[in-house]
Amino acid sequence: MIARYARQDMRTLWSDERRYDTWLEVELCACESMEQAAGTLIPSGTAAWLRSQSHKVRPWDLKRLAEIEAHTHHDVVAFLMYLEERLGEKARFLHLGMTSSDVLDTSLSLLLKEATSKILHGLTSELLPALKAQAMLHRNTPMMGRSHGIHAEPITAGVVFAGFYAEQTRAVLRLRHALVAISVGKLSGVVGVYGSGQLSPTVEARSLAKLGLSAETISTQIIPRDRHAELFLALALLAASIERLAVTVRHWQRTEVGEAEEAFGAKQKGSSAMPHKKNPVLSENLCGLARLLRAEAMSSLENVALWHERDISHSSVERVIAPDVTTLADFMVARATDLVKHLVIKPDRMLQNMNGTEGLAFSEKVLLSLVQKGLSRQSAYEIVQRNAMRSQPGLGKRFKDSLWEDEEVRKILSASELDGCFDTKHHLRHIDEMFERTFGSSEDALSV
Amino acid sequence: MIARYARQDMRTLWSDERRYDTWLEVELCACESMEQAAGTLIPSGTAAWLRSQSHKVRPWDLKRLAEIEAHTHHDVVAFLMYLEERLGEKARFLHLGMTSSDVLDTSLSLLLKEATSKILHGLTSELLPALKAQAMLHRNTPMMGRSHGIHAEPITAGVVFAGFYAEQTRAVLRLRHALVAISVGKLSGVVGVYGSGQLSPTVEARSLAKLGLSAETISTQIIPRDRHAELFLALALLAASIERLAVTVRHWQRTEVGEAEEAFGAKQKGSSAMPHKKNPVLSENLCGLARLLRAEAMSSLENVALWHERDISHSSVERVIAPDVTTLADFMVARATDLVKHLVIKPDRMLQNMNGTEGLAFSEKVLLSLVQKGLSRQSAYEIVQRNAMRSQPGLGKRFKDSLWEDEEVRKILSASELDGCFDTKHHLRHIDEMFERTFGSSEDALSV
Amino acid sequence: MIARYARQDMRTLWSDERRYDTWLEVELCACESMEQAAGTLIPSGTAAWLRSQSHKVRPWDLKRLAEIEAHTHHDVVAFLMYLEERLGEKARFLHLGMTSSDVLDTSLSLLLKEATSKILHGLTSELLPALKAQAMLHRNTPMMGRSHGIHAEPITAGVVFAGFYAEQTRAVLRLRHALVAISVGKLSGVVGVYGSGQLSPTVEARSLAKLGLSAETISTQIIPRDRHAELFLALALLAASIERLAVTVRHWQRTEVGEAEEAFGAKQKGSSAMPHKKNPVLSENLCGLARLLRAEAMSSLENVALWHERDISHSSVERVIAPDVTTLADFMVARATDLVKHLVIKPDRMLQNMNGTEGLAFSEKVLLSLVQKGLSRQSAYEIVQRNAMRSQPGLGKRFKDSLWEDEEVRKILSASELDGCFDTKHHLRHIDEMFERTFGSSEDALSV
Amino acid sequence: MIARYARQDMRTLWSDERRYDTWLEVELCACESMEQAAGTLIPSGTAAWLRSQSHKVRPWDLKRLAEIEAHTHHDVVAFLMYLEERLGEKARFLHLGMTSSDVLDTSLSLLLKEATSKILHGLTSELLPALKAQAMLHRNTPMMGRSHGIHAEPITAGVVFAGFYAEQTRAVLRLRHALVAISVGKLSGVVGVYGSGQLSPTVEARSLAKLGLSAETISTQIIPRDRHAELFLALALLAASIERLAVTVRHWQRTEVGEAEEAFGAKQKGSSAMPHKKNPVLSENLCGLARLLRAEAMSSLENVALWHERDISHSSVERVIAPDVTTLADFMVARATDLVKHLVIKPDRMLQNMNGTEGLAFSEKVLLSLVQKGLSRQSAYEIVQRNAMRSQPGLGKRFKDSLWEDEEVRKILSASELDGCFDTKHHLRHIDEMFERTFGSSEDALSV
Repeated sequence: MIARYARQDMRTLWSDERRYDTWLEVELCACESMEQAAGTLIPSGTAAWLRSQSHKVRPWDLKRLAEIEAHTHHDVVAFLMYLEERLGEKARFLHLGMTSSDVLDTSLSLLLKEATSKILHGLTSELLPALKAQAMLHRNTPMMGRSHGIHAEPITAGVVFAGFYAEQTRAVLRLRHALVAISVGKLSGVVGVYGSGQLSPTVEARSLAKLGLSAETISTQIIPRDRHAELFLALALLAASIERLAVTVRHWQRTEVGEAEEAFGAKQKGSSAMPHKKNPVLSENLCGLARLLRAEAMSSLENVALWHERDISHSSVERVIAPDVTTLADFMVARATDLVKHLVIKPDRMLQNMNGTEGLAFSEKVLLSLVQKGLSRQSAYEIVQRNAMRSQPGLGKRFKDSLWEDEEVRKILSASELDGCFDTKHHLRHIDEMFERTFGSSEDALSV
Repeated sequence: MIARYARQDMRTLWSDERRYDTWLEVELCACESMEQAAGTLIPSGTAAWLRSQSHKVRPWDLKRLAEIEAHTHHDVVAFLMYLEERLGEKARFLHLGMTSSDVLDTSLSLLLKEATSKILHGLTSELLPALKAQAMLHRNTPMMGRSHGIHAEPITAGVVFAGFYAEQTRAVLRLRHALVAISVGKLSGVVGVYGSGQLSPTVEARSLAKLGLSAETISTQIIPRDRHAELFLALALLAASIERLAVTVRHWQRTEVGEAEEAFGAKQKGSSAMPHKKNPVLSENLCGLARLLRAEAMSSLENVALWHERDISHSSVERVIAPDVTTLADFMVARATDLVKHLVIKPDRMLQNMNGTEGLAFSEKVLLSLVQKGLSRQSAYEIVQRNAMRSQPGLGKRFKDSLWEDEEVRKILSASELDGCFDTKHHLRHIDEMFERTFGSSEDALSV
Repeated sequence: MIARYARQDMRTLWSDERRYDTWLEVELCACESMEQAAGTLIPSGTAAWLRSQSHKVRPWDLKRLAEIEAHTHHDVVAFLMYLEERLGEKARFLHLGMTSSDVLDTSLSLLLKEATSKILHGLTSELLPALKAQAMLHRNTPMMGRSHGIHAEPITAGVVFAGFYAEQTRAVLRLRHALVAISVGKLSGVVGVYGSGQLSPTVEARSLAKLGLSAETISTQIIPRDRHAELFLALALLAASIERLAVTVRHWQRTEVGEAEEAFGAKQKGSSAMPHKKNPVLSENLCGLARLLRAEAMSSLENVALWHERDISHSSVERVIAPDVTTLADFMVARATDLVKHLVIKPDRMLQNMNGTEGLAFSEKVLLSLVQKGLSRQSAYEIVQRNAMRSQPGLGKRFKDSLWEDEEVRKILSASELDGCFDTKHHLRHIDEMFERTFGSSEDALSV
Repeated sequence: MIARYARQDMRTLWSDERRYDTWLEVELCACESMEQAAGTLIPSGTAAWLRSQSHKVRPWDLKRLAEIEAHTHHDVVAFLMYLEERLGEKARFLHLGMTSSDVLDTSLSLLLKEATSKILHGLTSELLPALKAQAMLHRNTPMMGRSHGIHAEPITAGVVFAGFYAEQTRAVLRLRHALVAISVGKLSGVVGVYGSGQLSPTVEARSLAKLGLSAETISTQIIPRDRHAELFLALALLAASIERLAVTVRHWQRTEVGEAEEAFGAKQKGSSAMPHKKNPVLSENLCGLARLLRAEAMSSLENVALWHERDISHSSVERVIAPDVTTLADFMVARATDLVKHLVIKPDRMLQNMNGTEGLAFSEKVLLSLVQKGLSRQSAYEIVQRNAMRSQPGLGKRFKDSLWEDEEVRKILSASELDGCFDTKHHLRHIDEMFERTFGSSEDALSV
């Protein structure tokens, strides 16, 4: 995690202090439930007393914790020894019959659950509304639709934002599915069979309920890693969808297109050498971050097939990717929101570009009219293509004129029929239905 | 897709013939709906007539199709020209107002939907029952649980299979989610705004309903690629879970462990040089295939951010990975089923291995007993660790004896208390609850 | 490997027949060397006799081979049994003291070496000359240089091609390094210690020399997989460099830029719906293939850490990626060559685009002139940026005019000094030196 | 980069302070060369004066630098403004005619070059000697060779280390190649054509020579990213080779094998719950880090195809992966060295395991003896396999005895001939040649 791409909430969430807080909370909840179980080793009142004393461990003395870990080579053992130093001998009733992974994995789930919730909140309360606002504002702003980077036929700017909106609602649904998958803890002891005599499925369920988690169906030493991979992959896919948005902005902003522009600060400098530059740097940054996210998420797939009831090879991977992937996803959602909200849309330039291609965008309509008049698809295609090649951009000849000068066309279509082919309003008459479908259905989907 | 790792159904599904069949079906369904729409260019009865003549296009003349494509450089245009050759001039009413991607993407969804359904069927009707059967059979077969590849504490062989069962039910849920995501078609014409005058949201919905698909909320020229990526990633994750199963078998089968063995055919040869070999080749193969799947699935994330309303760079990727990823996943499920069904489990060897480590597996119980008697966690840990080091495998000294010879231990624990620490039955007393939870909850989850 | 993206040579190279030919050749060369060694079990003359009879095994009866493999579950054993069927009992002297991997790995090296040589040949004799030709032709064709997709300062079209040329020479060097790494065989028997009594380092070296390979320094059961990964990664990187070229063409061809265009066949169709379209489909295809290549290459890194002296998990991965990665790389080099050779470059449009941005491209020169006159960098920057913002594209105001109307500028620069800032010729005066450096040094590098 | 996996040198290398130091050094060297060029704007003596004052900028006031960047949104511009604040108006002669990427990319090369050199030093002076020492020590320590995790035939422990040694020498060669590739700077100004009038190929070459770098053949706005990808991929491959070593140790250490063990500290704790545990945690950690490295390296391939003369999407990726990948690689080399150096090798256990499989390891020798006596390969194979199956581990029957009881065997082999098949010494007689080849050739290769 690098500070440059991390918002404060996420930095706090993944801080050492927060980790130790979470570990302690898991130990205390487990202790409370164990204390109440039949056959417990824990004297009544211990858990409450320990909780009441927990101010003594804070602020966490990170230096001391590191010192202990340096000779135990084991982070959870070091943590427990630190607790004994601060809380005295009663601390021996913490972690009773538990294994490190009970604490580590349950805590990791808590942190990932919180991180995912934050990202979901950013999506539903920030990015989706920003996309919807632009969609509504530019519902009827005509712009050229492009395939292969080549002018195709007209669309509206609003449709593009509506499309991003719909895509992000799918991201929300996937993340919610992953949130359920990760909201699972594990207090089943060594290799997951509650063998110590202190833990049991009942104690586990009760402890995890306090923490807002369900119990893993069958754990090994740990929570199986397909759950984590599902989350990281869902975030990588979210990032790819944001990348699509960012790539679109980069294309719109390029000098020759100029249909939209990232907001540019009063004192901002686009280049150290060229004072004239205004570059789509936010969008480019989002593209780079999407690459990072998918690369890091990928490694989570290699964490699934651990050895027997567990090896520890996943640990180093997760120490890096759990904070990185969630922090970057959160950052990307926030940055994408800013980008969309403050994007300078240029309807005039959109019109200008549409008019720059001699009316070629309506070639399909001409084709269909010829087919309607009885021509075979193939013959019609050849006539239209022939004239389109005469009106390529730069040749300075309107497509309609090329067609009108073509005798074969004139034999089939009247002047007014030809004119009718070049009507944008008719072309875009289904936009309202599309919006209805999007902002109806997506919201329904989200409110589930 | 290579034949060696493809089952017949999948080879058929991804054959050229099947692709053209699907294209034709999409064209016919679209034509039927368009014909019924107001303002249609299609004479009444055309769609029915075309469908009645469709035997004329089959068997698909792949050579002729390739010939036409060789000069059009466009596969759908070649397909349409072929139809005109075979069906005559009425074929011009096919594809009216449509763009290639309407056919391609709707067809791809149909094929992916079918492939996914097959894989799901393999999971729910083959692999899950096989896992459950082994779980039930070995519910109480004690085996050593291992973390880091090192003996930890006892579990049962059945618990391991129950864990795989639970993991695969999660794979099923993810795949079902992805199945919904991919069951979406698109008949919205060029750049997705139904501009041609023949298509409309209504025509689209009606056509797709016949095909068993929903309509894309907002399409561009194509169905956005986050949907496809979700499916491919879900399959990569399924593969990783199968890999975990396969790695486990490989560990069990290794010479020194020998707790399970892949079935070995009467005429099978393990090695060209060494007649004594029986190798876990199915499991190793599954591990390799999981690598392939995750690599190929990864590239689907790079397909999301296409340019503007679409570029065609995703096409070559999907021509390879759509068949590969689904075919390999199907093959893996089938092979994993065989593997599990015919796996030779060796309870005697499991017991022998458990007994080979001098009782060290019960060190936690001794630790807890000392803590119960009032020792601090840290002191207890040191005593137990000290004795465990004296009874490392190979040193030939039972752990219980080491402990009993330790004066500090004897001061605290009686002989019978020490004996009580080494009781497997007590250790495994929650297995039934775990099975209840698994085969209850998972089946509920699946029956949703 | 899919036929659509495979040239004939590569299809032949990776055919079943070629594989069996190569296996046989390895067995014969090994047999010849073994026969000559002291203590051999092979009667004199056997190898020569077997070679003389080898026409009897061809054409390879693939059906029979598959049949035998179906019950042995082992491809090399099946191959040897087939040889015994065809060549009679003397065939038992083949493979003597060898293990399957001796044949498989040595053969794989031979095939990869040949594939790599083909790709190298394509690079040096096709793609590099095509790039050089375009570089020379357009050495002085001015075009706008762009960063962030935004106009920066002028370059020439030739410089861009020279850059691709230089990059591809680096690809050549990397591939040559990988070619050496992969030109290594292994005839060291089971687990690589020549234990059978028939093989020895001497026998191995002699056999491999006949095949044009060196011997692995220390083999395990196989040739360690870092060698293969080096090759696949080098090809993925080659693909990424071709992708850069392809992305550039896609940008040049987009409607609003129009500075270059892929060749378009007389009968080619750009779109099934829109006859006016000419799309950069070759370039888009190259981008997709680059994604595939890097994904597949990546899985080779997971093949390195096999278990002990080898497991077989790498095998399924390589059955797919060895043909795919080399075949696609070969195809990409050929397609990139076509693309470059036939690319339609449009110098007029380049000029037109340069002139479309009101002279902003020269803002740096103005900045430097102000600094030269004693302004601080920061003050100069602010003056120039202020005027640049007044002359953004679309605002219709020449940048030079904006500057001249700015009093602060006029106080510092004379009219002729300002004019001097807008001189392209001066700006591009180092092009010749750059070409000298490229076509000198690169060729030197290649001729090493 | 996380502190847990970063050695001090690397932390320093990638610190903010070091980055600013490097930027300043690049600016000063460029200024010195520019000052000496014909037509310079820089008054004589400026560069020397600026260098003499450079203590004034240190210690770098990171807070102030961040402040300026917060409103310029541009890190190099902020740096230059900071220099003007500290050095006064003469600082305007720094960066004259340069673009940010001149500084950024040249500096990145310097840092990557230094990082790579450190890693190379670690390899050649630490890891390789450690591997060689173990190889020499255990040259003749017999251990079982294994394929598929199943006993194959005997090797020696030294051979395994010699194999790792040979593999790491290949890593060294690849890294040296990548080091040359990355030892390249770029001072060619905006879009790489030296257009500003201050820069020229001559000025660039002179400046870079002072910094120990060559000039890029043809730069764009930046140094093309294939160079960086080559380095990152070489490090990912190095990591995969270390992973192979680590996986081997993990297998050796597993309870049932026990042939080697990671060193275990006096106060180290293997598990919070189970005091008896000694786990191969270093090796497992190395496996996880290898996953991270290959994932992050992968993203460098997506950085190659930037838009036109450059976009900035690579920047965020490199801010993370340049430090991460080099730091982790350095850490892995150091940790692998420790692992190898202090590894506890257990020759007794190796022997014990070899003897545990009833002599099956010699099945190939029996096969060959039967073939030598005139049996067909196939018949011999069946006889040997039949007896091997009777002596599978656990069945308690020596393989030699099974064979001797088989009439068909006794008809062909005498008792002493059968005995001769079970001779380890003969089996391992080529070890010395192999060592000769390794420690000869590898050192030669390295000394080139």
